[in-house]
Amino acid sequence: MTLYGYWRSTSSYRLRIALALKGLTPEQAPVHLVRNGGEHRSEAYRRINPQGRVPSLVLDDGSVLIQSPAIIEYLEEVYPDPPLLPADPVARARVRAVAAIVGCDIHPLHNVGPLNHLRRDLGQPEEAVAAWIGHWISDSFAAIEALIGEDGHCFGPEPGLADVYLVPQVYAARRFAVPLEPFPRIVRATTLAEAHPAFQAAHPSRQPDAE
Amino acid sequence: MTLYGYWRSTSSYRLRIALALKGLTPEQAPVHLVRNGGEHRSEAYRRINPQGRVPSLVLDDGSVLIQSPAIIEYLEEVYPDPPLLPADPVARARVRAVAAIVGCDIHPLHNVGPLNHLRRDLGQPEEAVAAWIGHWISDSFAAIEALIGEDGHCFGPEPGLADVYLVPQVYAARRFAVPLEPFPRIVRATTLAEAHPAFQAAHPSRQPDAE
Repeated sequence: MTLYGYWRSTSSYRLRIALALKGLTPEQAPVHLVRNGGEHRSEAYRRINPQGRVPSLVLDDGSVLIQSPAIIEYLEEVYPDPPLLPADPVARARVRAVAAIVGCDIHPLHNVGPLNHLRRDLGQPEEAVAAWIGHWISDSFAAIEALIGEDGHCFGPEPGLADVYLVPQVYAARRFAVPLEPFPRIVRATTLAEAHPAFQAAHPSRQPDAE
Repeated sequence: MTLYGYWRSTSSYRLRIALALKGLTPEQAPVHLVRNGGEHRSEAYRRINPQGRVPSLVLDDGSVLIQSPAIIEYLEEVYPDPPLLPADPVARARVRAVAAIVGCDIHPLHNVGPLNHLRRDLGQPEEAVAAWIGHWISDSFAAIEALIGEDGHCFGPEPGLADVYLVPQVYAARRFAVPLEPFPRIVRATTLAEAHPAFQAAHPSRQPDAE
């Protein structure tokens, strides 16, 4: 398989963690989101992914999978071991809820597209953009802090889907200088995950296109 | 089970469709997002859902499920018939990708919170807010148009997860007066789904709190 992604993209990082936890090591095909006017917007890349976003995962039979939430559920179905989700349906829903808070309520609001829109089209200064980012991260981190466990990874002794989503989101929060002191459980779960070999292998700084 | 939702909320509408397709008819507990300063922000509601958002689904044993993507996956696991997803993992990933485009790349950007932030905190006039909404809907509808099928529902003769997400998103697009002419496949799939009894029962206008 081949992974089209970008080293610092939150959703690429998330997918890399899931792949690494499953013991999968796809070839990497970096797509630079800034250089050449954004390589994700090129005709060549849009032939792979008509949405023109990263990540995309191309399987060995040529099937193209897009959208990290869909790709990660695919990985869980086809490579069930080790599992990213518990067995009980209610427990699975609780883990997926934390993933959805990151994937739907935080990341989309500070993705590069909306931030550029705020800057360019709405003429917002950097302080207003930073306040926007900080608001959405802090607001939903407060909810996650109330939902995850008191020790270990987000939901127990092994990392799972919630950790896969949370760690790249904390990476982004640090990059945007959002204070994390109000969220000791999130910091604890992130620190623990960051020591795990799969999370280390997936870290932006370890990717071939890291700057 | 009891559904906490709001008649016009995109994610409540989405969950209502999934419930109706599964033949489930939970009691409804409307949560008014405007009245009383927003009932979702109340202490009483936050005891049910610490994130203070709709929808929430309370099961008969008292378990609380939050976040529509997580709840819908729960429904698919516990009530597999009729299925919202095909059997083949790659086909499932393609359907989930369309759901994720709606759930991650469109809806979060025109949710009530971000729009209020644009208006109140960033002082944006209504024309700028409308342009923001239209941009995100049109941009991702173009991708969905390239991903769904040429006839029938989004992916074949029966409605599924992609339709569950798409129909409320088209409802929102119409409410925001976003032109749909460039998206004939989306309009076709939506029109077909809107004639289905489950989609009709879930329509905002048919809910007890509709205004």
